[in-house]
Amino acid sequence: MSSRFTFASRFDGVSGSAIREIFKLLAVPGMISFAGGNPNPEYLNGEELAPIAERLLREKGRTLLQYGATEGYGPLKESLTAYIKSQFDVDAAADEILPVTGSTQAMDLMCKALIDPGDKVVVEDPTFLGNMQCIRLYQAELLPVPSDEEGMDMDALEEVLKKEHPKMIYVIPTFQNPTGRTLSLERRKRLAALAEKYRVVVAEDDPYRDLRYSGEALPSIKSFDQSGYVALMGSFSKVISPGLRVGFLNADRELLRKCTVGKQSSDVHTALLNQAVVDEYLRSGKLPGHVKMLCDGYRARLNAMLAGLEKLPGIETYTRPEGGLFVFAALREGLDATALLQTAVDRGVAYVPGTHFYAEGGHHNTLRLNFSMPSVEEISRGMQKLADAIETAL
Amino acid sequence: MSSRFTFASRFDGVSGSAIREIFKLLAVPGMISFAGGNPNPEYLNGEELAPIAERLLREKGRTLLQYGATEGYGPLKESLTAYIKSQFDVDAAADEILPVTGSTQAMDLMCKALIDPGDKVVVEDPTFLGNMQCIRLYQAELLPVPSDEEGMDMDALEEVLKKEHPKMIYVIPTFQNPTGRTLSLERRKRLAALAEKYRVVVAEDDPYRDLRYSGEALPSIKSFDQSGYVALMGSFSKVISPGLRVGFLNADRELLRKCTVGKQSSDVHTALLNQAVVDEYLRSGKLPGHVKMLCDGYRARLNAMLAGLEKLPGIETYTRPEGGLFVFAALREGLDATALLQTAVDRGVAYVPGTHFYAEGGHHNTLRLNFSMPSVEEISRGMQKLADAIETAL
Repeated sequence: MSSRFTFASRFDGVSGSAIREIFKLLAVPGMISFAGGNPNPEYLNGEELAPIAERLLREKGRTLLQYGATEGYGPLKESLTAYIKSQFDVDAAADEILPVTGSTQAMDLMCKALIDPGDKVVVEDPTFLGNMQCIRLYQAELLPVPSDEEGMDMDALEEVLKKEHPKMIYVIPTFQNPTGRTLSLERRKRLAALAEKYRVVVAEDDPYRDLRYSGEALPSIKSFDQSGYVALMGSFSKVISPGLRVGFLNADRELLRKCTVGKQSSDVHTALLNQAVVDEYLRSGKLPGHVKMLCDGYRARLNAMLAGLEKLPGIETYTRPEGGLFVFAALREGLDATALLQTAVDRGVAYVPGTHFYAEGGHHNTLRLNFSMPSVEEISRGMQKLADAIETAL
Repeated sequence: MSSRFTFASRFDGVSGSAIREIFKLLAVPGMISFAGGNPNPEYLNGEELAPIAERLLREKGRTLLQYGATEGYGPLKESLTAYIKSQFDVDAAADEILPVTGSTQAMDLMCKALIDPGDKVVVEDPTFLGNMQCIRLYQAELLPVPSDEEGMDMDALEEVLKKEHPKMIYVIPTFQNPTGRTLSLERRKRLAALAEKYRVVVAEDDPYRDLRYSGEALPSIKSFDQSGYVALMGSFSKVISPGLRVGFLNADRELLRKCTVGKQSSDVHTALLNQAVVDEYLRSGKLPGHVKMLCDGYRARLNAMLAGLEKLPGIETYTRPEGGLFVFAALREGLDATALLQTAVDRGVAYVPGTHFYAEGGHHNTLRLNFSMPSVEEISRGMQKLADAIETAL
């Protein structure tokens, strides 16, 4: 059927999230879902945030309900300066920080500032589906670079930088989505150096960093940035609340200014109440304790999932993340995770086939497993169901 | 100085809001500002919204703090169906409504869905600066069409539609920014018919409609739409709170689907707390009483401003709006509102030169006067100061 509308060419080949259909399967009662990526709702603490929001509106309603500056709510920018220093090892001035509606908006504004149709953007292979869609809507060409247990392969990256002159490198350095992998210290340093050498912007997307269950925290790529080419995108979606839509972009002032002008036309500013609630929560000093509780809960779930993977038939490899929300697994070559999904769902367990996270598809034997939503007991039971489903295909 | 960054070509010639510099002048203590467009803070009722936010977070925190659907919060979509029916005379189903972060985002998503570089967009001459910037960032060509006391000139529009084949018509039909003018009933009907005849999308931006101080409400353009070409953009910024960033887009399902896919990559979804607060406020039945209070307060201010305009030296014409936040005035040909601004500011009164609202500039004798921020007494005093400033130029 021909449409009455002529849509913009940026939508050619973009049809919305490829995994929306999978999420519809999850509505079945009793389904154990390894498909999502949401924080566990038991850690979403409305009781704690309710009096904060109440007091803010009562005491500062005339400020918080009014229009605000696109540049963000001053007190939050102050809090972010301290947060970025402590968590990312970066000295960011308030005017190098833009509060945004989640790191998704940070990515959108970075593309708005930098990407013309036909420009090239390096992504990890595999990487986060949502931001691949964002990049595609800016009509850039995706250049997937392979990654291994230490994250993106820097030799392969340098080859691509030399040959293809991309405009941007998009990377999730810590507990990556979908693999759970973490970029090693050496590679972080090298990536910052390559950005300077090849004059290419790094969009460092680091929403999972606080969810570390073992091992030592690594400095951000941005902390090694001498040139201003590295931009850091952070989010409170994984540690406070995704529904509040608050994150931040920390970038060179000139780049940030373009993102700010872009944001004027996108949404004027991030809602002030939401910025103020996150600010108060950061100032309350409660975040570290909350994150510790999250980590304890998620660590037990990750361990249950890794225990299940150890016994999974037909499995070839799987990642062993030190944090985050995901494990990525590869079945024996020839097994097809997309074909297997219906069998799994029939048995009451769901996941996302890994092929969706590869810029060029393929890798049909891979799957992404999320462990933040189900309980430890459900994870054990769900992994047994998954084992049964795989058995039918062997 | 050459930049280390190569920015996207969409920023060529876009440097952020042209009136930011003017707003800096307003920080001077005692300045009477007719320059802004904010709701009066005395009507921003934090006391009323505080217990709503508190209860929502306490009772529904696990839902409202979690990720939500890009399509919007179900209960708000229900409330919007009733609101759109009562205020805009439009029968909109829930799946024809997308909650957004203010009508600014609605405009951004409409452009994202429809505009390729080089496409043409009709705008009123003059029109809202912010959305001209939005259209320019999508690299469309602006086609200004003149307007008179009844709004956009439909004969002139039809000529442009025939000759130029634009992709979209952007129009603020009620108490327009910057003129305060309202598109007449006849022209509303004709605009809906022209949209169908020439297969061009109308972006109907109607954030001021509830702020009517005299005369009869008119049906929306969308209410005459038989073809699906009219999209309605609404906002709660003028009647509840701009800082909450909640508005809506009501459009044909196919067009709305593209906007929804665009929104996935812009910000995933509008913050759920904000959607729920607006939903509860709409359900409380308090909005009509609140709007009546707003209208009483703003009507007195508008009358004070019109009284001042009547006595203004050097004035040629000015609009007599029945609502909204702005009056638009033209000084005698040869007087320059930009040059005059510094004199006015020195005397303690500010406004925005009208030239900024014309797609092609010019019209240097015009100025926009906002009356929502100052008190009635300040308006009288400010208009006297403005008279004194103009006297110096005569």
